[in-house]
Amino acid sequence: MGGVNHGFERLTAQYLFREVAKRRAAYETGHPADEILSLGIGDVTRPLAPPVSAAMAAAAREMATREGFRGYPPAFGYDFLRAAIAARYAARGVSVTPEEVYVSDGAKTDAATLAHLFGDVTVALPDPTYPVYRDAHLLAGHRLRLLPATAENGFLPTPDGLPRTPHVVCLTSPGNPIGVAYDRAGLTEWVDFARGSGSLLVFDAAYEAFLGDTGVHSIFEIPGSRGCAVELGSFSKSAGFTGVRCAWSIFPREVTFDGVPLAPLWERLKSMASNGVAYPVQCAAAAALTPAGLAATEKNVRYYLANARLISRALRGAGVPYVGGEVSPYLWVRCPDGISSWEWFDRCLVLRQVIVTPGVGFGDAGEGYVRLSALGRREIVRRAAARLFGGDTREKAQSSSLMVSYGIKMKNKRLKMTGRSR
Amino acid sequence: MGGVNHGFERLTAQYLFREVAKRRAAYETGHPADEILSLGIGDVTRPLAPPVSAAMAAAAREMATREGFRGYPPAFGYDFLRAAIAARYAARGVSVTPEEVYVSDGAKTDAATLAHLFGDVTVALPDPTYPVYRDAHLLAGHRLRLLPATAENGFLPTPDGLPRTPHVVCLTSPGNPIGVAYDRAGLTEWVDFARGSGSLLVFDAAYEAFLGDTGVHSIFEIPGSRGCAVELGSFSKSAGFTGVRCAWSIFPREVTFDGVPLAPLWERLKSMASNGVAYPVQCAAAAALTPAGLAATEKNVRYYLANARLISRALRGAGVPYVGGEVSPYLWVRCPDGISSWEWFDRCLVLRQVIVTPGVGFGDAGEGYVRLSALGRREIVRRAAARLFGGDTREKAQSSSLMVSYGIKMKNKRLKMTGRSR
Repeated sequence: MGGVNHGFERLTAQYLFREVAKRRAAYETGHPADEILSLGIGDVTRPLAPPVSAAMAAAAREMATREGFRGYPPAFGYDFLRAAIAARYAARGVSVTPEEVYVSDGAKTDAATLAHLFGDVTVALPDPTYPVYRDAHLLAGHRLRLLPATAENGFLPTPDGLPRTPHVVCLTSPGNPIGVAYDRAGLTEWVDFARGSGSLLVFDAAYEAFLGDTGVHSIFEIPGSRGCAVELGSFSKSAGFTGVRCAWSIFPREVTFDGVPLAPLWERLKSMASNGVAYPVQCAAAAALTPAGLAATEKNVRYYLANARLISRALRGAGVPYVGGEVSPYLWVRCPDGISSWEWFDRCLVLRQVIVTPGVGFGDAGEGYVRLSALGRREIVRRAAARLFGGDTREKAQSSSLMVSYGIKMKNKRLKMTGRSR
Repeated sequence: MGGVNHGFERLTAQYLFREVAKRRAAYETGHPADEILSLGIGDVTRPLAPPVSAAMAAAAREMATREGFRGYPPAFGYDFLRAAIAARYAARGVSVTPEEVYVSDGAKTDAATLAHLFGDVTVALPDPTYPVYRDAHLLAGHRLRLLPATAENGFLPTPDGLPRTPHVVCLTSPGNPIGVAYDRAGLTEWVDFARGSGSLLVFDAAYEAFLGDTGVHSIFEIPGSRGCAVELGSFSKSAGFTGVRCAWSIFPREVTFDGVPLAPLWERLKSMASNGVAYPVQCAAAAALTPAGLAATEKNVRYYLANARLISRALRGAGVPYVGGEVSPYLWVRCPDGISSWEWFDRCLVLRQVIVTPGVGFGDAGEGYVRLSALGRREIVRRAAARLFGGDTREKAQSSSLMVSYGIKMKNKRLKMTGRSR
């Protein structure tokens, strides 16, 4: 009896970013002289902080010496990095031991690997969601229960209405694609639900650096969470590591699901599924947690947040409803005139030559929204926001014509890629 | 309905290397002055080649510049590295396009991820085997059919006796833990079986560099394989990347299983399960494939093979039956007097202060054997081989007393960790 994994049939095609790229390419072919600006990018653009880069380069050189060469890294990370991550939690008043920190090459890897911890479970997921949470659990054959993030619940789903039975609940805060964060009361409600129902919280804190000195950075700030929650953290957005690849998970010693301690299973799974993270990468990550590294990487976060304020001001000026951008690089913006995510994508591309990310690409409940990212370079973000929403006098002509585009009634569902108003 | 993955119950504890470490530690505690030498290590020890280290350091520095910064790597690898790997195949007369090359952070990661391609399948595996093949498929709920590697079949299982039904067949050549390699006839037999039965071959070529100018380096050297085989390659043992983490898989466009083209599923799975490999790591890997990089890394392989010849000579001198060590850093050695793998491990540790790897740790059919590794430093390998099997006049006294230890009749199954003959 042969057979490929039938879980693949449950996955949608990886439509979103491929389709964005396809439509952009189609437009560019027809208009090679146009400059397209992107607010679609979910990737950082600031260079690595100098101490981080220097630590990685030094480790690379060390590996060419007889004394400094290192082979297989420890399966769960070098002690120096596990300790540095634990110390970062301690600095926020959260008690996590180095042995509860598991280093990996990315939060996405961890999120996908996590799915294999579970058997016949129901996974509760915000809709829209970062896609790996949906895809990994569908592929593993799990049931999904979607929790719509809507204007009514402030785009932060609560456990209200969820049966008090064991779920695996995947929460991202600050969110992606919706750049809003749970407060202490909201997370306490989830921890209480988990404790009362025998559920497990998988808390994705990849964007916690954008909270600055406010908000809840770790689920382990919430009393009672250590028995019912695990956490994913990442250097990707805090220290600009999307091209360096380093992240971590926290599995408290006492966390269980279905009565089974999870840390030993996680250790078994991780040491089966990977041979660990490169030594120079771990040195770079540790450097990002030194005072000099933190100062440099926090500067980058402030840069992106200043970008986000630029977009926010433009949105408010144009009277466009949105959330996010305060403790996140992402803004979640309502499409005008009740049009669809892809329709607005087309208008932004064709009429303004700006790339946005259709919200529906992250889940059905994202229909009618787009995600704007502030992770680009200042000048690009400024000009793109001006093109879309005005506020930049140098592009007045364009912004006023954009306002016109809000009133356009599209004759055909598919916009021809040849028309331009500029 | 909650539940952890019941597949965990099918896994044995990660006994092997932990148990080795435990017994070593117990001995060391009792004999702190003794110097223990290891032939157990499955990890490289030679430093990175200078051009490789330099490329990685340069890329790390580049990432700190505005112009040189790179965010998320392409999901399947940078074009420069995919092309360099394809060119390496072309140099051996094997036609693989860059688009068929998928870069990853390790062959182990790929081997584990691969299991999720399949549904309800039977996986045919050599016994003993590199553990991830057994564990990942057990965890995924697949059936295993073990193919004992024995002296009778030259430690190279054939398809003889396998039902001609679709299997996923995982082969490693040169092997791990048994350091022998299939020849062209042997692999042709497997390709013929796969074509005739609708099976898929997963060919692990992580040790191909040890073949030098002989043997079959890629399953795609065998006619007809492109429709029924995928391949895993690695920089770990060729270029000493166990601490750098870079590998690749080859999925030919035409490869199918159960009538389904596999490359699109692999792309979906890989882009779900990872965000790719660090740019500096990929630069290092590309440097390892330049003429200067190849010259330097081939020198390291020759160094390990010279170590293996040292061990081989000692084994032959002592009349101990073994295979391997010619096109592999591993030697597979028959335990004396019909004793078990762990019994001989204990004797080697207690009587000779040398670490070996019990063959039974890789599968039941490995009982009665140990794996010796030539990946250590020359001086350590030389002295360990002399301690175990004689041949080094400087350690004559020890080698002759070792010969005595061959005749020891163990009174108790568990050797007391206090007795020493030296």
